[in-house]
Amino acid sequence: MQEMPASKAYRLLESGPVVLVVTARDGKPNVMTMGFHMVMQHAPPLIGCIIGPWDYSFRALRDSGECVIAIPTVDLAEKVVDIGNCSGETTDKFETFGLTCAPARDVAVPLIADCLANIECRVADTSLVDRYNLLILEAVRIWIDADRRERRTLHHRGDGTFTIDGRVIDLRERMVKWKYLQD
Amino acid sequence: MQEMPASKAYRLLESGPVVLVVTARDGKPNVMTMGFHMVMQHAPPLIGCIIGPWDYSFRALRDSGECVIAIPTVDLAEKVVDIGNCSGETTDKFETFGLTCAPARDVAVPLIADCLANIECRVADTSLVDRYNLLILEAVRIWIDADRRERRTLHHRGDGTFTIDGRVIDLRERMVKWKYLQD
Repeated sequence: MQEMPASKAYRLLESGPVVLVVTARDGKPNVMTMGFHMVMQHAPPLIGCIIGPWDYSFRALRDSGECVIAIPTVDLAEKVVDIGNCSGETTDKFETFGLTCAPARDVAVPLIADCLANIECRVADTSLVDRYNLLILEAVRIWIDADRRERRTLHHRGDGTFTIDGRVIDLRERMVKWKYLQD
Repeated sequence: MQEMPASKAYRLLESGPVVLVVTARDGKPNVMTMGFHMVMQHAPPLIGCIIGPWDYSFRALRDSGECVIAIPTVDLAEKVVDIGNCSGETTDKFETFGLTCAPARDVAVPLIADCLANIECRVADTSLVDRYNLLILEAVRIWIDADRRERRTLHHRGDGTFTIDGRVIDLRERMVKWKYLQD
């Protein structure tokens, strides 16, 4: 996997793909599916995530302050749904779903080599967890599989149906005010 | 336009479409383009939005506590980008872009009849504006154009390129834990 600047996290997340969140506890990795997230800031790159005490990953994330946001593509659709419909409390999800770990650089949480991209994150602010289950993460490093042919991400429509990325349209010429985002 | 329950806002927003935010000030409507938003909670339906003092809409939204989130489709792509690249301070965007107003029910802000759906919103929490420019909105009413043929939304990849919705895959059968979201 190739590295891309952490400041470019918005290029992967602003479009709203469903993502996987990897955590680790006592050296054992776990993974959950997440649909409620957004880019909060370009620099430093902050990502807001809704993860609550009802998620088994919540404690690992709160205790360790680290996670990886992995971005799956359409070939992983069934796994993405199944990962979100069982708990790490009773299931070894990496084994059950045959996910391939790869070492991260800055966090003690593995990357998922099967995904298009992996964003190493540190928890930046937990002050809104009690009120809104809002964890604010800072992206610290990004890895992307540049050779991957399947790059279409999945967008959850909230009920178990997903839109797959279709055609891309390029309107960069019209971005007169926000031109710097193209650097 | 047909009404759908406000509690279903996540069905329109979780997939991460770029949206338009309508506000009004002294009875004059304005509109901005927004890419940083997420569903924060199913019930009551809360939506987190990053809107800062650099946005002309910010003051209207903060003063009135009301807005409409309109969801455009691919036929409006150029307008969506152009709306995001000029300011309501100097441009009457409704006139310039030929947008059609329709009356909302619960807020003193117009709907955009040209869009697929419109979500009437009230500001629920401004306490995080200073730190993160995060406005938390509650969806109070939703209107959807049920007869519209073009329903493909746009997903901003952060740099002026957009993914258009492609095929939909239905994995509802696998949603064993989250079945209630299909009601």
